[in-house]
Amino acid sequence: MTMITLKPIGVLHSRVTRLEEVPFQWMISSLEGDIEIFEEYTEGLQGIEDLDYIVVIFFFHKSTKEYSLIQKPPWSDKMRGVFSICSPLRPNPIGLSVVRLLSVKDNILHVKNIDMVDGTPILDIKPYIPLKKDNEPLNSINL
Amino acid sequence: MTMITLKPIGVLHSRVTRLEEVPFQWMISSLEGDIEIFEEYTEGLQGIEDLDYIVVIFFFHKSTKEYSLIQKPPWSDKMRGVFSICSPLRPNPIGLSVVRLLSVKDNILHVKNIDMVDGTPILDIKPYIPLKKDNEPLNSINL
Repeated sequence: MTMITLKPIGVLHSRVTRLEEVPFQWMISSLEGDIEIFEEYTEGLQGIEDLDYIVVIFFFHKSTKEYSLIQKPPWSDKMRGVFSICSPLRPNPIGLSVVRLLSVKDNILHVKNIDMVDGTPILDIKPYIPLKKDNEPLNSINL
Repeated sequence: MTMITLKPIGVLHSRVTRLEEVPFQWMISSLEGDIEIFEEYTEGLQGIEDLDYIVVIFFFHKSTKEYSLIQKPPWSDKMRGVFSICSPLRPNPIGLSVVRLLSVKDNILHVKNIDMVDGTPILDIKPYIPLKKDNEPLNSINL
């Protein structure tokens, strides 16, 4: 099957420059930082200020070690398959975080709850869509 | 900045083979299908049967048209920036769906709520982690 090639649309700036200091999950992080969207993509941010939360897709650029299909997550003693955990060491080192969008200024998104290290390449930004198990109607902003 | 190269870990099988028939959002889809994980990655599925919902990261392989940074989503008359909508036409054509995991058999995940066309290359599977605005403690399965 074909290989897929992607190009970063931006980069994360954060005070956390050492992997050891990165919160291991956005859910338990209160760290703030700035997502710089490269200027050629700035127009694509139109309307994003309406969102409280965004999904950030990024590249685990520090995941240079070999991955294993079975790993021990830091919060458990049990070994688990890589697709049931959020480890940065995975076949395709793509990360996903849901972060709070605090403010937008030009091409800079100031966000909270980050679990990425300074310099992380950003691949995509999407609106956060909550799962509604009762299938209630959506409001337009969530689509 | 460096280009990033990814390799599919699997492929989606669904009865929907025409793009026009794909539900435009997982949130409003009740379509079922099978995610085939290629055999070399099957071991990475260990423990996934414990999850009710999974996040599927995929490649919009049919997005061969040029993308625009400002687009009109199908549910609105208003133009919006590409990063505030879920359009398949985006700088990096990566899709994200939250789907219900109905069953697992060997390397096949039977899922519901899909908004992908038959033959979609799968890039990653992650556990679905709900956003809890009140920061209540997580149970281990959600991590």
